Amino acid sequence: MKKTPGTGDAHPAQPKADKASVRRHNLSLVLRTVHEAGETTRAAVAARVGLTRAAVSSLVEHLLDQGFLVESGKTFSGQAGRPGTVLKAADTGPAGLGVEINVDYVSVCVVDLAGTDRLRITHPADNRVHRAAGAAEVLGRAARIAARVLARAAERELHPAGVRLALPGLVSRGTVHQAPNLGWNRVEADRIFAAALTALRPGQPELPVASDNEANVAALAELWFGALGDVRSFLHLTGEIGVGGAIVVNGELLRGAHGFAGEIGHMVVAADGPLCRCGSRGCLEQYAGQSALLRAAGLAEKGTAVSGSAVEELARRAEAGEPRAVAAVEEAGRMLGLALSGAVNLLDPEVVVLGGIYPRLMPRLAPAVDAELAHRVVSGLWLPSAGRLRPASTSTDAARGAAAVVIREVLSDPLSYGR
Amino acid sequence: MKKTPGTGDAHPAQPKADKASVRRHNLSLVLRTVHEAGETTRAAVAARVGLTRAAVSSLVEHLLDQGFLVESGKTFSGQAGRPGTVLKAADTGPAGLGVEINVDYVSVCVVDLAGTDRLRITHPADNRVHRAAGAAEVLGRAARIAARVLARAAERELHPAGVRLALPGLVSRGTVHQAPNLGWNRVEADRIFAAALTALRPGQPELPVASDNEANVAALAELWFGALGDVRSFLHLTGEIGVGGAIVVNGELLRGAHGFAGEIGHMVVAADGPLCRCGSRGCLEQYAGQSALLRAAGLAEKGTAVSGSAVEELARRAEAGEPRAVAAVEEAGRMLGLALSGAVNLLDPEVVVLGGIYPRLMPRLAPAVDAELAHRVVSGLWLPSAGRLRPASTSTDAARGAAAVVIREVLSDPLSYGR
Repeated sequence: MKKTPGTGDAHPAQPKADKASVRRHNLSLVLRTVHEAGETTRAAVAARVGLTRAAVSSLVEHLLDQGFLVESGKTFSGQAGRPGTVLKAADTGPAGLGVEINVDYVSVCVVDLAGTDRLRITHPADNRVHRAAGAAEVLGRAARIAARVLARAAERELHPAGVRLALPGLVSRGTVHQAPNLGWNRVEADRIFAAALTALRPGQPELPVASDNEANVAALAELWFGALGDVRSFLHLTGEIGVGGAIVVNGELLRGAHGFAGEIGHMVVAADGPLCRCGSRGCLEQYAGQSALLRAAGLAEKGTAVSGSAVEELARRAEAGEPRAVAAVEEAGRMLGLALSGAVNLLDPEVVVLGGIYPRLMPRLAPAVDAELAHRVVSGLWLPSAGRLRPASTSTDAARGAAAVVIREVLSDPLSYGR
Repeated sequence: MKKTPGTGDAHPAQPKADKASVRRHNLSLVLRTVHEAGETTRAAVAARVGLTRAAVSSLVEHLLDQGFLVESGKTFSGQAGRPGTVLKAADTGPAGLGVEINVDYVSVCVVDLAGTDRLRITHPADNRVHRAAGAAEVLGRAARIAARVLARAAERELHPAGVRLALPGLVSRGTVHQAPNLGWNRVEADRIFAAALTALRPGQPELPVASDNEANVAALAELWFGALGDVRSFLHLTGEIGVGGAIVVNGELLRGAHGFAGEIGHMVVAADGPLCRCGSRGCLEQYAGQSALLRAAGLAEKGTAVSGSAVEELARRAEAGEPRAVAAVEEAGRMLGLALSGAVNLLDPEVVVLGGIYPRLMPRLAPAVDAELAHRVVSGLWLPSAGRLRPASTSTDAARGAAAVVIREVLSDPLSYGR
């Protein structure tokens, strides 16, 4: 046998961790424990993490001193031990900045260490590019919005530790390889955005910039801030101009070998269907994307996914029983169900979450999706009564997810981000 | 924020491992290291695992004594230190028994600790059931074959530590929930097989029995014994009467929330296509399964997937350019490509491996599959020249994979299995 069967490669025993790295690890552990609890006490943290009360107190002092934690005046009788002063994550200091650049809008938000969405600017904008320089212009525009948000954040003593871009395309190592609906190809998004932002903030420290697929961070937002309860494995769809998808398995994104997983919008639902911007035919987004839906319903695509006026109009008409609107939504639902039945047969998730424009359309959309899932998922677990098809929470979106990814990095190693 | 964003739940610090559990862990580490190396020395093992030479020697003595390792007479000059006596995994003693029950055959094999396929009996058999008691009869028949193989194994001093069943259906916690092509529903396979096997071996120790999906263990066989090189993330298809599928991500099976992941045979390739045994319409296996292929080629389904006579005939005709055979294989390839394009867009694997009847059909099949992948995978990474579509290795199959899963369990905790 050439390889050890799956027990993992034998690896050298861990070198003994030195004192500094143990402390670094424990600072993160204590910070994450407080963060997760919302409000807690030193004693409760000590009980939870299995360190002595004295050790926890020392770590907490450090985290208070560096601005990651604050004490509130009140005392609190937790489950473990005597009442103590309440600790919580700071609502000033280190924060995360998320910048979603979608086809027809830019949305920028700041999330504080506790995970609260604190500042937000969303601008309708046509980000489709029609010539070579276009992507840089779009990124420059987004950087200007980000700079404005950063200035306002500073007034509130919020200091983002980094920027995460959320983009509707195939993103890997800072480059958008392809974003069919933006018309982007091989755009070095991180580099261009970082240069633009730095130029707009003379004399201020450069912020690290990283990019991700917008559907991926939208799924993380649903995981962290949504209403999924104990669900840790799900498929997340974002209905926009395109249809984004992300796969979460045991609380982690399944990113694929090149970071390109989740492209459910390009699953084929009709082999000889209409041409897609990706070059294939009959992709799901040609039936269930926003443009396709509005076209089928006879609605001009006015407004944007943000203002949502056309989608709102579609939802109103569908609810009123207007035949063309009903037919458009039901056909989209049938095609969503067809693609989703394949994805569910393949992945066996606990639930499927529909975000973007879909929650607003659920009354007519969900029954059509459910019918396909009930008919086509081989396990028989997807009957409508099982409640496995869910609308995304209204409090989640890609920009918030992107900002929270930065927070995640801070929580995992606070020493790198202290003041 | 209700949940710590993805840094994992804060968990209590690990209790200090006691001496016995450290030794238990290290025995496994040393055994796996020798197993993986094939042939090695104490000094090389010590260098690899980061333990002292003395500690490794003590562990090796224990493993020799318990029959997991053997010394060969020769000495060997490895990269680390002086020449030493060669150690390798024992080719007697603890072994694994794999039992594949597919639609038209049963295959039983014994794999030794080194991973070698040592004994094998394969019987053509119609395992489709048509009445309530049928599944128990099929399992009883398989147990009789297993008992014969166990008797022969004992003659060679091979003593399987457990049995893994490989079944073409949805398997979870010892029960086959559904196996459309077998006609099984809610069959407690583990319990029935174990009882039958125990009855056939009076006075002998009961063997633990566990079940898995046959496509899952076939994929593990490909990972452990195939020709994938460094590939650790792939999609594996097994063309039989049905079309099985399995997803391997970073060297581990993606099993899904209920253990039902990988059902690529029931991805829909034509919404209104022929009725499938699962109740849906237009499933991939209605176009690319063995029965569908032979029917389309005008070949009666004589022989079995094991003897392969009908498939062999199909392959000969397709290679000779017989129009109906060519059309059947190419249509199957087109439909495989259609379903796979969706799976690849969703999962972004490194490669796709086609097993079962497909390797024999590759000359006409692969170009049709490749054309769809090149056309429809949005990343553009699936051009035929990339070599991402591969036939399964001839040395891998579900029975061998199932047996190797038992070996994996032995390697991960040898103390539980020593003599």
